[in-house]
Amino acid sequence: MARMRTKKWAIPWIEDHPDLILQDPEFLKGNWKRKLHGKKLHLEIGTGKGNYLNQMAALYPEDAWVGIEKEAPAIAMAARYSYEENSESFYNKIFVLGDADQVLKWFEAKEIHYLHLNFSDPWPKKYTHKRRLSSQKFLERYRVILADDGEIIMKTDNKGLFEDSLVYFNAAGFRLVEVSVDYRRKEHPEDAITEYERRFMDLGQPIYRCVVQKIR
Amino acid sequence: MARMRTKKWAIPWIEDHPDLILQDPEFLKGNWKRKLHGKKLHLEIGTGKGNYLNQMAALYPEDAWVGIEKEAPAIAMAARYSYEENSESFYNKIFVLGDADQVLKWFEAKEIHYLHLNFSDPWPKKYTHKRRLSSQKFLERYRVILADDGEIIMKTDNKGLFEDSLVYFNAAGFRLVEVSVDYRRKEHPEDAITEYERRFMDLGQPIYRCVVQKIR
Repeated sequence: MARMRTKKWAIPWIEDHPDLILQDPEFLKGNWKRKLHGKKLHLEIGTGKGNYLNQMAALYPEDAWVGIEKEAPAIAMAARYSYEENSESFYNKIFVLGDADQVLKWFEAKEIHYLHLNFSDPWPKKYTHKRRLSSQKFLERYRVILADDGEIIMKTDNKGLFEDSLVYFNAAGFRLVEVSVDYRRKEHPEDAITEYERRFMDLGQPIYRCVVQKIR
Repeated sequence: MARMRTKKWAIPWIEDHPDLILQDPEFLKGNWKRKLHGKKLHLEIGTGKGNYLNQMAALYPEDAWVGIEKEAPAIAMAARYSYEENSESFYNKIFVLGDADQVLKWFEAKEIHYLHLNFSDPWPKKYTHKRRLSSQKFLERYRVILADDGEIIMKTDNKGLFEDSLVYFNAAGFRLVEVSVDYRRKEHPEDAITEYERRFMDLGQPIYRCVVQKIR
């Protein structure tokens, strides 16, 4: 997600809504599903302005949704949209302002059912690949917090990131369950289309997607 | 490879050149590299008119190349081209007229280093998927004849075949080593471009490719 110009209202808004945007939510470790009244726990890492999480939480109100984002202006927009929309799904989702580095501190082992990576920063230069959210260091952490049949669902427009990530997944103990090299050539009403994704679709560019499952 | 109209010269030509186009070559089991004076043994399944095999055998004259094809008119063209070209690589390649079903009869366990699948028939209808050359039944056989560090290299223009094959490979004990969702966006002088492939490139359509390695 591209950096945004500082939004002056964001920081005060985040400070005024500590229940909507958590910071360092260690106190919820092991209790996220109870807190969010959901059957299965979804975690989106790099949730940006919340376009995906807000739509998906509305589509799947029986599940629990958590979005982590490290950019304050983005997550303020995500949570404010959710707050002002005042939808039914308001109570089954929550946002965390913080770094994906910290997931082991915030989530119990096997607590997550689905981990979502949407249009993550591709970090195209080789020496920056280790910062990718699908790189080895992160996958090792995801494996710990994912349930035994837990899945990572990744979507991107970036060829290089997608190609490399398929290899990373296999190397880190995940097996491919589904792959698409042009996800939107078929209808997928079960999956939300973000504004960002729509732009690529309008340009006729393919959306890449895969679902991988933890190998026990 | 699409079926061709019968070429009247093909069957007599095949009969006249039993050393260039083998049929049921069980006598070479375990001895292919010696026969072909090559370091590593490459096997292409569904070699068609030989456009890939003939180019690759010339590019890698130190290796040994075998192409299997079940359509007589196609393989006759492959071998005749190789014969008339009379190139340096004439002695490091050979063609087999027969069905990929028979590979266990023809090759010793672990005899093959690289197995190539180029633009295989996608068999798009679900009930025909089992005929795909990358389907489970075939992958089990390939595992037997592949060396411990052996690899399958697959190239296709077909989205559905590529997507499903990545999943098949993982399910059958192969790990992804390389994936490309648009192989020709970069130069790859190490890999031959066939006439068939060139047509897709000219239309601006992506070529999909992967390299998978046997998991011991």
